[in-house]
Amino acid sequence: MDISSLAPDVQHFLGQAAYSELGEFEALARAVATAPNLAVKEGLSSAAGRALSKHHGLITEIRRRDHDPATEMAPFVTGLDEFRSKTSGADWHELLLSCYLAGGLLDDFFIRLSDGLPRDIGPRVAQLLGEDSGTDVLVHELQTAIENDTALGSRLAMWGRRLVGDTLLVARSAMPAACSAAAAEARIEPVFTELIAAHTRRMDGLGLTA
Amino acid sequence: MDISSLAPDVQHFLGQAAYSELGEFEALARAVATAPNLAVKEGLSSAAGRALSKHHGLITEIRRRDHDPATEMAPFVTGLDEFRSKTSGADWHELLLSCYLAGGLLDDFFIRLSDGLPRDIGPRVAQLLGEDSGTDVLVHELQTAIENDTALGSRLAMWGRRLVGDTLLVARSAMPAACSAAAAEARIEPVFTELIAAHTRRMDGLGLTA
Repeated sequence: MDISSLAPDVQHFLGQAAYSELGEFEALARAVATAPNLAVKEGLSSAAGRALSKHHGLITEIRRRDHDPATEMAPFVTGLDEFRSKTSGADWHELLLSCYLAGGLLDDFFIRLSDGLPRDIGPRVAQLLGEDSGTDVLVHELQTAIENDTALGSRLAMWGRRLVGDTLLVARSAMPAACSAAAAEARIEPVFTELIAAHTRRMDGLGLTA
Repeated sequence: MDISSLAPDVQHFLGQAAYSELGEFEALARAVATAPNLAVKEGLSSAAGRALSKHHGLITEIRRRDHDPATEMAPFVTGLDEFRSKTSGADWHELLLSCYLAGGLLDDFFIRLSDGLPRDIGPRVAQLLGEDSGTDVLVHELQTAIENDTALGSRLAMWGRRLVGDTLLVARSAMPAACSAAAAEARIEPVFTELIAAHTRRMDGLGLTA
C-alpha cells in the first residue's frame, strides 16, 4: 500500500503544484527584497530562480497537454494564498524559515504524489521538483542567526512547529478526494510520517527542536 | 566618435549592470505579487525570470573573473535602490510602466556601453542583455488599460516622462568618470539621443505621448 495507488488527477496535480511553486517563488522574492546584505540577497535570488524554474517547468507540462495554466491553477488560489499569508512570518527570519520548511515539505509531498501520475509525466515531474532548491543560503543564514541569539532560536522553533501543521493541512487538502475514506487514510498515514520525519531533520539541521 | 571609445571598466560595468538587473527583477516580482489575475501573474513571472536570468548571467561573468559578486555590486546599491524607490509608482500600472520603460532603457544603455568592453566579454554580455525580456505581457496590460481609461492614460504619460528623466540620470552616472569632460560629452550625446528615441517608440507603442 502506498500513495501511488491513489492516482491523483493529472491536471489537478499540475495546477496545484504549479501554483504552490509560484507561491514559494513569491515568498523567496520577498526575502530577496528585504535581505540584510548583498551576499545573502544574491544567494536568495538563486533560490527564488529555482522555485520559479520549477513553476515554469510545471506550466510547460500544463501547456503540453493543451490546457490553460491560469485555468488549471485557479481552483487553488484561495487556499494557497491564505496559506502563504498565514505563514509569511513576523520578520525576515520567520519568512526564511517558512520558505525553507514549507518549500521543502511541499516539494517532498508533490514528489511522492507524482508516483501515482501516468508514466509519461510522473518521473519527469519528480525530477523537476527534486532539483536542488538552492536553499543552502537559507540554512546558513538561519543557523548563524540561531547560534547567535537564543531567544530567536526559541521563537523560530515555535514558528517551525506551527508551520509544519499549516503545511501538512495544505498537503492533506491536495490529496485526491477519494482519500477521505478511511481505507485511504491508512495508505496516507505512512507518507505523512515520512514527510514529518524529513521536516524534523530540517529542524534538527538548524539546531531547532521539532 | 562613439560610446565604445569610452571603454568602461569591466568590473564597474558588470557590478552595476548586475545590480540593475536585480532591481528590475525585484520590481517585476512585486508586480507578480500584486497582479490582478492569474494569467497576468503568470506572464509577469516569466518576465521576472528573464530579468533574473540576465542578472545571474552577469554574476557568472563576475565569478569567471574571480571576483566576488557582492563586492562588485556594493558601490551601486545606494544609487540604484534610490532610483527603484523613486520609480516604484503609486499603483500597479505605474509599477508596470516603470518595469517596461526603465528596464528597456537600461538594457539598451548597457548593451551600447558593452561595445567598449574587451572582445572576450563585450559581445557575450551584449547577447545576454539583448535576450527577449518577456515584456509583451506588460505592453498588453498597459495598452488595454490606457485604451479603456483616458485619465489613466494621461497620468501614465506624465509618469513615463518623469521616468525617462530619472532613468537617464542613472545611465549618465553609469558612464566612466572621464566622460564628464566636455570632449566626452560630445560622444555621449548621440547615444542618449538614440536611447531617448527608443524610449519614445515604447511610449508611442502604448499610445502615450512621450
